[in-house]
Amino acid sequence: MPDKLIRLRRNEPAGGRRPVMLAIAGDSAAGKTTLTRGIAAALGADRATALCVDDYHRYDRAERKNVPFTVLNPDCNYVGIMEQHLQLLAMGRPILKPVYDHATGELVRPVLVEPREVVIVEGLLPLHTKLARACFDITVYLDPPEDIRREWKLRRDCAERGYTREQVLAELARREPESAAYIRPQRAWADIALRFAPVAGRADQPGTPLSAEILLRPTVSHPELAHVLTDDDRRTVHLKLMRDGDGRPVDALHVHGYAPREDSRIVEKAIWEQLSFEHDQALPESLGQYAPGRRSEALAIAQLLLLWHLLEARVAFDHAG
Amino acid sequence: MPDKLIRLRRNEPAGGRRPVMLAIAGDSAAGKTTLTRGIAAALGADRATALCVDDYHRYDRAERKNVPFTVLNPDCNYVGIMEQHLQLLAMGRPILKPVYDHATGELVRPVLVEPREVVIVEGLLPLHTKLARACFDITVYLDPPEDIRREWKLRRDCAERGYTREQVLAELARREPESAAYIRPQRAWADIALRFAPVAGRADQPGTPLSAEILLRPTVSHPELAHVLTDDDRRTVHLKLMRDGDGRPVDALHVHGYAPREDSRIVEKAIWEQLSFEHDQALPESLGQYAPGRRSEALAIAQLLLLWHLLEARVAFDHAG
Repeated sequence: MPDKLIRLRRNEPAGGRRPVMLAIAGDSAAGKTTLTRGIAAALGADRATALCVDDYHRYDRAERKNVPFTVLNPDCNYVGIMEQHLQLLAMGRPILKPVYDHATGELVRPVLVEPREVVIVEGLLPLHTKLARACFDITVYLDPPEDIRREWKLRRDCAERGYTREQVLAELARREPESAAYIRPQRAWADIALRFAPVAGRADQPGTPLSAEILLRPTVSHPELAHVLTDDDRRTVHLKLMRDGDGRPVDALHVHGYAPREDSRIVEKAIWEQLSFEHDQALPESLGQYAPGRRSEALAIAQLLLLWHLLEARVAFDHAG
Repeated sequence: MPDKLIRLRRNEPAGGRRPVMLAIAGDSAAGKTTLTRGIAAALGADRATALCVDDYHRYDRAERKNVPFTVLNPDCNYVGIMEQHLQLLAMGRPILKPVYDHATGELVRPVLVEPREVVIVEGLLPLHTKLARACFDITVYLDPPEDIRREWKLRRDCAERGYTREQVLAELARREPESAAYIRPQRAWADIALRFAPVAGRADQPGTPLSAEILLRPTVSHPELAHVLTDDDRRTVHLKLMRDGDGRPVDALHVHGYAPREDSRIVEKAIWEQLSFEHDQALPESLGQYAPGRRSEALAIAQLLLLWHLLEARVAFDHAG
């Protein structure tokens, strides 16, 4: 098929075509939105639809005062409707998605969501049920160390959602049993588990960017990183065969936040060039941004890997279709 | 199959089973809700789900000030989502239905709707598209004379929705072109067209109950009324072969509102007894009520016919399944 035709097909909205579905699961303030935003921006608004599935609440904030569980509990959510909407999106169909207003705690007017070429679904429970998991081409679980996630949640909920420090800490304590019961078990269903953290045992200066451990499970085909990562790259990135906590074999890609940015960029470009059908384009600048003017090369490399998966899946569909 | 088992199956919620789907279409204040309410009450809350599909508005009241059409226009509504929700209900699946608050003109929190054994869908546009029509087992169009509908709309919108007489008249005038373009054409797709009106040419006293003309199109099988209606019944009810305005042949069942109530009740009981699987139960008292304490035998007979269709379809499914 001529190159131009492929490009046209890939740029058109999904319509009745099946989009590529990416799930990004994780606990509150695990970094889901930050991860999503960079990938969606790299793809462009005309190619990516990003949505959060934390709006399928059965009860608003006032009603939740009278129920014996938190929003992390599947019983607090219309999980069946979430599954239905994921199935519809996976088939290229639009949905009228419920909306929960975090500022007021009210359930408000729903919005029309139309799937484009790639649909990025982030949330607390997108991998909770088998039917929901079956809707995705690639699944990610964000797994920061608890102390870092608490820090992030305190910072966000106090600054952006108007809570006091004490309120956030009390909510974290209240949620912990349901987090253990419903959120963290989803890690087992992820093709990629992502942990941003300082490297254990190093005494890096405060302000050193976080490193990333990117677990690549053999549940999907990952890019051929062995070809990309030369010995020169080892101080920046290295790939290691290991066992996960549950004993299952995984490839762990370690990206060192303390490495010089120039070195990381070389690795990023090498991965980017693996995306053969995109190598006439520059590496998207949106990758790695986690706050206005703040960059993390570890985040950029994680996003790049996900971008690789999304574009590979897209090409596989085009060839199949 | 033993009788008790049939009854158990028919009383259980639809679950994964396909419900019987009834559409009641018609213009604003045509009497859709009154017709629906009596049938739903006769079936019982555990067997019937009634919903209105006029909540799929794209714009709330404030936003509609800036669009060049009224709520009657399909472009003012998420027709694709309405179709999707009708398909889901027809397959026995729940939906999260949008809600439009008539009092405030705002789009508010959606509600979960779970299909029971019978789903009654009323609204302005349920028969507008082919895909929507394909979801129904039986379709009805309510077709009162325009002067009677205007009267009903004035009464309701002033009393219940807080509008002035002038506002309602202006709105009726504004809506007329779209009513002609989108609402009235749906009559052609109805298995049953229902018109409540005084009989033309008679000088009945004010307060005489309305008569009904019930057009029974040969698009579905209707009950064997010839057996039920004896010559004695002719002053109450009669069946006549005729041509509809479009030239298509139809049976017209005329129910005379001026007939004595006792005579109408005999006909009602005769039809009710045709519902062989229900004849151990008394004729439901909810049929024919159009206001607290107010009854119309013409309405009761129309509702009874619809009830016959719903229960026949249910039995057909049970035998097929």
